Amino acid sequence: MKEQVQKTFEALFALEDIREVLREALPTGLDPDEEQAVREGVARVRAILDDLEAGTGTPAVTKIAGTLDIRNREEAYINIQPIQAAGRLTLEARKALIAYGDGYSTCDACRKPFRLDKITKPSIAAFHEDLAKFVNMDVARVVPGARRGFQAVASTLVSKGDPVIVSALAHYTEFLAVEEAGGVVKEVPISKENLVTPDAVAEKIEEVIRETGKNPALAMFDHVDYQFGNLHDVAGIAKVVHQYDIPFLYNGAYTVGVMPVDGKAIGADFVVGSGHKSMASVAPSGVLATTDEWAPKVLRTTAMVGDVTNRKFGIKEVEMLGCTLMGGTLLSMMASFPAVKERVNHWDEEVKKSNYFIDALLAIEGSKVLSEYPRKHTLTKVDTTGSFDAVAATHKRRGFFLSDELSKRGIVGEFAGATRTWKLNTFGLSWKKIRYLAEAFQEIATKYNLNVKPRTGSA
Amino acid sequence: MKEQVQKTFEALFALEDIREVLREALPTGLDPDEEQAVREGVARVRAILDDLEAGTGTPAVTKIAGTLDIRNREEAYINIQPIQAAGRLTLEARKALIAYGDGYSTCDACRKPFRLDKITKPSIAAFHEDLAKFVNMDVARVVPGARRGFQAVASTLVSKGDPVIVSALAHYTEFLAVEEAGGVVKEVPISKENLVTPDAVAEKIEEVIRETGKNPALAMFDHVDYQFGNLHDVAGIAKVVHQYDIPFLYNGAYTVGVMPVDGKAIGADFVVGSGHKSMASVAPSGVLATTDEWAPKVLRTTAMVGDVTNRKFGIKEVEMLGCTLMGGTLLSMMASFPAVKERVNHWDEEVKKSNYFIDALLAIEGSKVLSEYPRKHTLTKVDTTGSFDAVAATHKRRGFFLSDELSKRGIVGEFAGATRTWKLNTFGLSWKKIRYLAEAFQEIATKYNLNVKPRTGSA
Repeated sequence: MKEQVQKTFEALFALEDIREVLREALPTGLDPDEEQAVREGVARVRAILDDLEAGTGTPAVTKIAGTLDIRNREEAYINIQPIQAAGRLTLEARKALIAYGDGYSTCDACRKPFRLDKITKPSIAAFHEDLAKFVNMDVARVVPGARRGFQAVASTLVSKGDPVIVSALAHYTEFLAVEEAGGVVKEVPISKENLVTPDAVAEKIEEVIRETGKNPALAMFDHVDYQFGNLHDVAGIAKVVHQYDIPFLYNGAYTVGVMPVDGKAIGADFVVGSGHKSMASVAPSGVLATTDEWAPKVLRTTAMVGDVTNRKFGIKEVEMLGCTLMGGTLLSMMASFPAVKERVNHWDEEVKKSNYFIDALLAIEGSKVLSEYPRKHTLTKVDTTGSFDAVAATHKRRGFFLSDELSKRGIVGEFAGATRTWKLNTFGLSWKKIRYLAEAFQEIATKYNLNVKPRTGSA
Repeated sequence: MKEQVQKTFEALFALEDIREVLREALPTGLDPDEEQAVREGVARVRAILDDLEAGTGTPAVTKIAGTLDIRNREEAYINIQPIQAAGRLTLEARKALIAYGDGYSTCDACRKPFRLDKITKPSIAAFHEDLAKFVNMDVARVVPGARRGFQAVASTLVSKGDPVIVSALAHYTEFLAVEEAGGVVKEVPISKENLVTPDAVAEKIEEVIRETGKNPALAMFDHVDYQFGNLHDVAGIAKVVHQYDIPFLYNGAYTVGVMPVDGKAIGADFVVGSGHKSMASVAPSGVLATTDEWAPKVLRTTAMVGDVTNRKFGIKEVEMLGCTLMGGTLLSMMASFPAVKERVNHWDEEVKKSNYFIDALLAIEGSKVLSEYPRKHTLTKVDTTGSFDAVAATHKRRGFFLSDELSKRGIVGEFAGATRTWKLNTFGLSWKKIRYLAEAFQEIATKYNLNVKPRTGSA
């Protein structure tokens, strides 16, 4: 298997070598030396294909640019890394990236008014409209990561000393966006089920108003948090937040692109999503969507005038700093988008697979799940202190024994060395892989004399 | 030629199809269906290679993800687009992108303290050190475009109402970064040679202090401006700026990655560069480098503490919003870096080629160059009002006649329809292409009965 992966990369690279010859050639055609180089290149690809087909051959290329390993974790392994699952590129995104990797590749046909989201070739303007519809909001922009969406909103709405309501499970980038704007985060405590409840949000807002004498400038809540992958009642929270006239930012870093998201139904004033986390896109990428009410504020255009030249750049949006994703990042989002739109319709199946695996893990005596259960998401925090960590206690490799065993079975992405509480994500794995994964964990348990309860029910 | 380009893309895509089969397979190996799919895929690639070698065949794939054209402007054409030249990917960057396109591809081995620039596998930490050395500064960070570097600095140093000194040729993103921070740009007038002089900067600072009663919070100057590609005396400007205790931001969007830049010799407090504009990298990418004096301010780590959880994310830098380029963008920068470091040593040759082409254009009677001449850069603003625009006046395609003629000769990147003042960039074109380009323009001139003076001197 690894041989075939290696030879596929080598063939791709050898074709890039040929492409480089074409890039150096005149548009009128190849000169004899270049023709010779292409012939040799083709011969090299053919030889690699022979190996690829036969599963033979030794690695001929092991480094890129002399120092970088060939990353093969999605080809040669099953990857359960908690943040990588929904950001792996689709086939079409990889093709788009091959064609549109060059710096400003989006700008071939940039015409007046010279703004990324207005470009029609490639169909960037239409994509922006689709993106807004996808999360059921009025307007959307692409941004370099969800965090840059938080930043744009916080920078617009939050002034020095303003309190901003977040959850006790808020992602650190929300903290930073608030801090960068000069605000102060105020955390809503979570319930003993590790959930944020609308009541707790109301209480916190009351408390903040009492203590600071200020109405919070903004509330930011994660539909699914990064710590447990729990699903929070964002619609209920938005309702409470709006009762205090606080704008509501919906953090969909773990939802937009994997499950259906309806911003209007939720009552979101802003929907932020992550391209590299959940939309099968190159990093840094993401989306900031908003309503017609808020767009003029957060997407306000520049009012600055040059005092000498009287220059104005009126169409450029201040918080976007003009154009955002001018190349491969955006094209990867666009190329993945049809598949992403389709995959959210199969979210139930993803949740089923998540539960299937977690059930198999729970069948290993001593294992627990710290996330809500049954699972409503594919990101899960587990606690194997009573199972694998007991093995680690006496194993000469300590916690790394589990990594070793998983790696032997072609599984990666667990936090190396961790056998107590750790996170994993099964998003996008086929049933075949899910079953393999479940069996692998149980096999390792059995090997180390942990009890495995027989599976009940069907799947 | 175009057939070979097309078939190269088709072969690359067909290999990605095979790769997708491998991605879907279990790590233990291919099942019979998958084996069959790989065999068929290999057969398809072989057939494409036959066409590639022979220069035969008709396009079998014309769209990516159903809607996106295959972008072949760097393979099938000579591209003189003003902002794209130095951002086209190197061969190694394209390979890195193939291997590292997936979302969070940089994060496989992220360990404590969990920050992008500390990751050692791939060698991101070492790259950051090299990057600082490359521009002779103390510390460097990667950012999503030069504009995000301006933003980080402005957000740190500029308060509401603060004046910021820029040039009358300043890029619009400098305006936006200042506006986003609440400041006001104050432009330094340019000389009749379209240059910013240290004296004019001193005068402007005096004027601003007189009028606002405030010392400017920051000065931002482009070493090479985007309008003319002129080279400004940034060292002289930095000296003046420092006499007023104003921090100096060096905008190297058109220099870092194409010509040698020595931040310390210039006297820069901040050096900002663009990955997708001048470092052969995927957008959005860039670099912000600074001194040991300024790093604690602009790269300050978060001080925010969760009021309920007492959570702190002490290692994360506020203005960076934590990690910045977590995937293919960064890897493309890293993979291009050895070539980029090398190419700045050949800047003289790039300038020679720029002048060779401009001389050929000037030989067409009625043509002018609006940039400083002889050229010191590869980005040039020309004025063909007296030559090609005279033809356009009576041509039924108006200004588009020039685009048509260039396109026929495999040249793209001029601003379509523009025949008066327009910009072009010859960076990275081989002598062979430069000569071809020069001949093409003169050939078009001759065809339309414009006088072309014979070349004098040698090249």
